[in-house]
Amino acid sequence: MADATMVIELGYRGADFAGFAEQPSERTVAGELRRALETVLRRPIELTCAGRTDAGVHALCQYVSLPVSADELKLPARRLLRALVALTPDDLSIRGIQRAPEGFSARFDALSRSYRYRIAAGEARPVLAWDHAWWYKGALDVEAMNAAAQPLVGEHDFKSFCKATSAVGRPTCRRVEGLTVSSVCEAGERLVAIDVTGNAFLHNMVRTIAGTLVEVGRGHRPAAWVSEVLDALERTAAGPCAPAKGLTFVGVAYPKRMLESWE
Amino acid sequence: MADATMVIELGYRGADFAGFAEQPSERTVAGELRRALETVLRRPIELTCAGRTDAGVHALCQYVSLPVSADELKLPARRLLRALVALTPDDLSIRGIQRAPEGFSARFDALSRSYRYRIAAGEARPVLAWDHAWWYKGALDVEAMNAAAQPLVGEHDFKSFCKATSAVGRPTCRRVEGLTVSSVCEAGERLVAIDVTGNAFLHNMVRTIAGTLVEVGRGHRPAAWVSEVLDALERTAAGPCAPAKGLTFVGVAYPKRMLESWE
Repeated sequence: MADATMVIELGYRGADFAGFAEQPSERTVAGELRRALETVLRRPIELTCAGRTDAGVHALCQYVSLPVSADELKLPARRLLRALVALTPDDLSIRGIQRAPEGFSARFDALSRSYRYRIAAGEARPVLAWDHAWWYKGALDVEAMNAAAQPLVGEHDFKSFCKATSAVGRPTCRRVEGLTVSSVCEAGERLVAIDVTGNAFLHNMVRTIAGTLVEVGRGHRPAAWVSEVLDALERTAAGPCAPAKGLTFVGVAYPKRMLESWE
Repeated sequence: MADATMVIELGYRGADFAGFAEQPSERTVAGELRRALETVLRRPIELTCAGRTDAGVHALCQYVSLPVSADELKLPARRLLRALVALTPDDLSIRGIQRAPEGFSARFDALSRSYRYRIAAGEARPVLAWDHAWWYKGALDVEAMNAAAQPLVGEHDFKSFCKATSAVGRPTCRRVEGLTVSSVCEAGERLVAIDVTGNAFLHNMVRTIAGTLVEVGRGHRPAAWVSEVLDALERTAAGPCAPAKGLTFVGVAYPKRMLESWE
């Protein structure tokens, strides 16, 4: 019988994980986290996450939830946190532990998810961003990309931006709340950042949006082409899926006051 | 007979290099760059750099110079750049090629060098900054660290901050032009940044300053202790040398108009 929900805020580097979701005989984020939690709580557990990420995709602030008992709720936050940090590998970061009411789901209670896709554009290899940006060996017109992106904002059928095999027989409407392309400076390096927030995302949707916008940025397609891609409702109409290493799941929004500090 | 100087702006990730300077049977930045340049220019060359870095230390913007002939000066910049990018490994980034007058030295003409030392302070492991920040598993008082750092600004004998074996019989006076400790957000992560600019630096000087300031930040020493360390002129008076992975050589200042674009 669950009395409350434990919510774990975590980050990870995607390179050495076969994605978030557990898969037999693969190293996954959920697998590593579940084993650490089972050691601490001494019972089998099942995890729910805000947004599953593919192999190679990073997360700065992913949320995971699991039902807990009143007894477990008494575990001191600091001890829990330290135990989890000690039991998880170097590429997984336990950022915090919070509590939510019984029945809370990191997935179903999420109002929106945000991603940043990073591109190091130009002749020079990225230095500090080498493992979390896609090195695109050419110039990109950031303003054109940002203008081209705007028709994607709003509620649309994003079938053209969904991995074809994942779209079969499933709803493909999603609401993109914000989508901007800008030039940013991170750790001293100039990068193109594609920031997108939406209620939910289809399989490969952000990476396909990134790959499509790059077609515009490199001058291969006009900005207006993106609307045509959206209207086509065909994966083949869009640009290529951009590499996983450039994508980072950056955050989730939940209804106010749903998460409380774990004492 | 040299007619001009080629100046290469480069970055690198320090993890897999035994430092900048060439060493027999070690993988070094200078070794990789020299081999690439010798392939392009088809002659033996010797490199001079603005600031040698130790094993594990990164560079965002290091400068390297070599004398070139009038014939070599005619090589198109774009072709040169592409050839060097193609001939250098993934952890080395050729950012640009410039020219300077005959006799220019990336080392002796440098007016100042700048470094950033990054610390991810707290219980949670850094995520995207994992390979260029030191994970310090505790809280740091950034304001106390910044206050403690100020007596180091100016011209001083920094013998206390120099690797003991490197200080023997050598001048240890240096001029620190700026030193600030602040809390920064890079790629979505909160880090403590120690930014230091000076005319030149002793062996391990920035890392020993970082290690000493952390002693203040963690509350182990009062801010005034740093002045005592400076006055002691003894390496044993200072704090430990902070790990190489947190240090990045970020830039160099040269006299105005000394560097010109390579056509």
